[in-house]
Amino acid sequence: MTRAALAERMGVNRSTILALTTELAAAGLVSEESPAVPEGAGRPSFVVRPETRRVFVLAFDVAVDRLVAARVGLGGAVLDRRETTRPRTGADLDTVVGGLAALGRELYDAAPPGTVCAGIGASYCGMIRPGDGMVRYGPEMGWVDQAFGTELEAALGIGLPVAVGNEAHLAAFAEFQRGAGIGSPDLIYLHGDVGVGGGILVGGQLLGGESGYGCEVGHMLVNPYGGRECLCGSSGCLEAETGEYALLEAAGRAGEFGRDAVRAVVRDATAGDRAAAGAVARTGDWLGIGVANLINLFNPGVVVFGGTLRELYAAAAPQVNARIKQHGMPVSRERARLLPAGLGDDATLIGAAERGFGALMADPIGRSALSPVG
Amino acid sequence: MTRAALAERMGVNRSTILALTTELAAAGLVSEESPAVPEGAGRPSFVVRPETRRVFVLAFDVAVDRLVAARVGLGGAVLDRRETTRPRTGADLDTVVGGLAALGRELYDAAPPGTVCAGIGASYCGMIRPGDGMVRYGPEMGWVDQAFGTELEAALGIGLPVAVGNEAHLAAFAEFQRGAGIGSPDLIYLHGDVGVGGGILVGGQLLGGESGYGCEVGHMLVNPYGGRECLCGSSGCLEAETGEYALLEAAGRAGEFGRDAVRAVVRDATAGDRAAAGAVARTGDWLGIGVANLINLFNPGVVVFGGTLRELYAAAAPQVNARIKQHGMPVSRERARLLPAGLGDDATLIGAAERGFGALMADPIGRSALSPVG
Repeated sequence: MTRAALAERMGVNRSTILALTTELAAAGLVSEESPAVPEGAGRPSFVVRPETRRVFVLAFDVAVDRLVAARVGLGGAVLDRRETTRPRTGADLDTVVGGLAALGRELYDAAPPGTVCAGIGASYCGMIRPGDGMVRYGPEMGWVDQAFGTELEAALGIGLPVAVGNEAHLAAFAEFQRGAGIGSPDLIYLHGDVGVGGGILVGGQLLGGESGYGCEVGHMLVNPYGGRECLCGSSGCLEAETGEYALLEAAGRAGEFGRDAVRAVVRDATAGDRAAAGAVARTGDWLGIGVANLINLFNPGVVVFGGTLRELYAAAAPQVNARIKQHGMPVSRERARLLPAGLGDDATLIGAAERGFGALMADPIGRSALSPVG
Repeated sequence: MTRAALAERMGVNRSTILALTTELAAAGLVSEESPAVPEGAGRPSFVVRPETRRVFVLAFDVAVDRLVAARVGLGGAVLDRRETTRPRTGADLDTVVGGLAALGRELYDAAPPGTVCAGIGASYCGMIRPGDGMVRYGPEMGWVDQAFGTELEAALGIGLPVAVGNEAHLAAFAEFQRGAGIGSPDLIYLHGDVGVGGGILVGGQLLGGESGYGCEVGHMLVNPYGGRECLCGSSGCLEAETGEYALLEAAGRAGEFGRDAVRAVVRDATAGDRAAAGAVARTGDWLGIGVANLINLFNPGVVVFGGTLRELYAAAAPQVNARIKQHGMPVSRERARLLPAGLGDDATLIGAAERGFGALMADPIGRSALSPVG
């Protein structure tokens, strides 16, 4: 972006923006270059770019079937990444932390000399205590009160804290900043895998609630009569009726799992497989009830579908839209757009990276004094 | 409150608070008096009080079976009030506006000379467009796009705009500022009459959403199979299962209506009437599902029950709490307190008054130049 555009966006004058970008450039966070083509008749305005390749974070994602780590540059570009599979069940804290730390160290050690690690962010599919990254509840792995953030910090040994967030919370921010929800500060992000999570932005702020555990969309009761059992111990939760187990079972494919299996059901449904089509319709119907309820409660500008719900919504939009029309108040739904995640499967990872950049963003000049890698 | 206490609350020093309270006193908004008993060994600190009897607003409440108007002083004290019945059905805009304006003019004309009307607020049981007080949707009276705010302003002819809000939104603020929710910025207020409405504060701010129509709690679908028909055209909404019609019908008292009828069911249930007890249990069970869902979504510090839900919760707390335990995530519910409205039946009216004071609060010195009554 040019200095002139920055000045306009921030409502400051040219001399102020010059002072600010000069300071950021001196700290090694942005570079400035003269534009190739002068704009109009006035002085050419310098283009200010983030130092994407010099300033990075480590971002981690504990996904359902794998552990992902990436080196993400300032501005959201994935510079390097590593993945490993993880056991579907019985993954304990040591296994997960050990696996992530090994990937993270590899990435860190491979970072070019002179680059700077500005922070570390991690995404986890559970309820995270703000501040220290304690997993209060992670039903999919059966975790209760596991010190994920502090253990990962210790195992990495980089000397930086690990900012942990719930996967859907992080993805909601990522979609708002860089994905399908740009310009929509009242945004609902729905994430599906085994579980179904939500990240809800109200006026651009994450809905935290009293203790930071808001947005538990997946455990909204939608089916009070004989609903499917949920990992949380209840039954009929949105997660139980719309997660991948529900879809795969309804399609007669119990025992399969993962996003590829979900994609196969959706593909077969589109191709005319009746069991698959029935499963998509049934699961999409419950998804529509959940979305209608959320639209009534939040009057969102955009609802973004991520993870397996991205696939499900693509195939079940008729069911979802019918339920919204049936149960959503016209005034509440008149401006709500429904969209697939713009960042695709990387929404959670990019969200973790943005969380990792949080400390730098809060105090760019102080933090940029971090010592370079190598 | 003393000047010293104000200074501490606001984080300013004594000379700053002296300058501020002197300015507010000169504008006629507060009075200052020396305390009867000097505090400790230091100088006595002057006590600053709002000019409750001098500065007032007109507050209106369109309740289910009556129209209410009050003159409310700065600080929330009801100085004078008038009520009239209204038709349960077929109340059109002219009838409601005419009735309210007559009450409001009476109150205004009866205000002592030298007092100042600082604003006008009105509560309506429907979806209100921010800015002009247009009722976008009021299912209970069948209103769609009725210019309630501007018509009431014109009918009153006082020369002040009417700030209109949804009744549950206004009551949520009133309970936060002066009722059961003081100190709890993450608050859910649930209001029952014929309809069920909600006002949700997230970090002390009303959840408005994209266009200001958030918090439509009453139309959350809780009963997807054969639920009761709702005034909104759908069925199985929280409102349909927990509003006064549902309770009275389940108790075998179809045809009765109003808060007194609801109170009678609750009283009879407590006294051992089996039909009444069954109605309370059934309706409370649905209320518990709704509250559990809201706790999962919002991680509130407090849930406040108002209108008929205040009575229902008092009798059906076991059902409500059982559902919260069954469906609410432990981490989400561990700090949520459930309370009856501290302001009782006046929560909406006091909320309307606070909305009426909004312009004065935003610019106290500029607004206080309003010409006195009489």
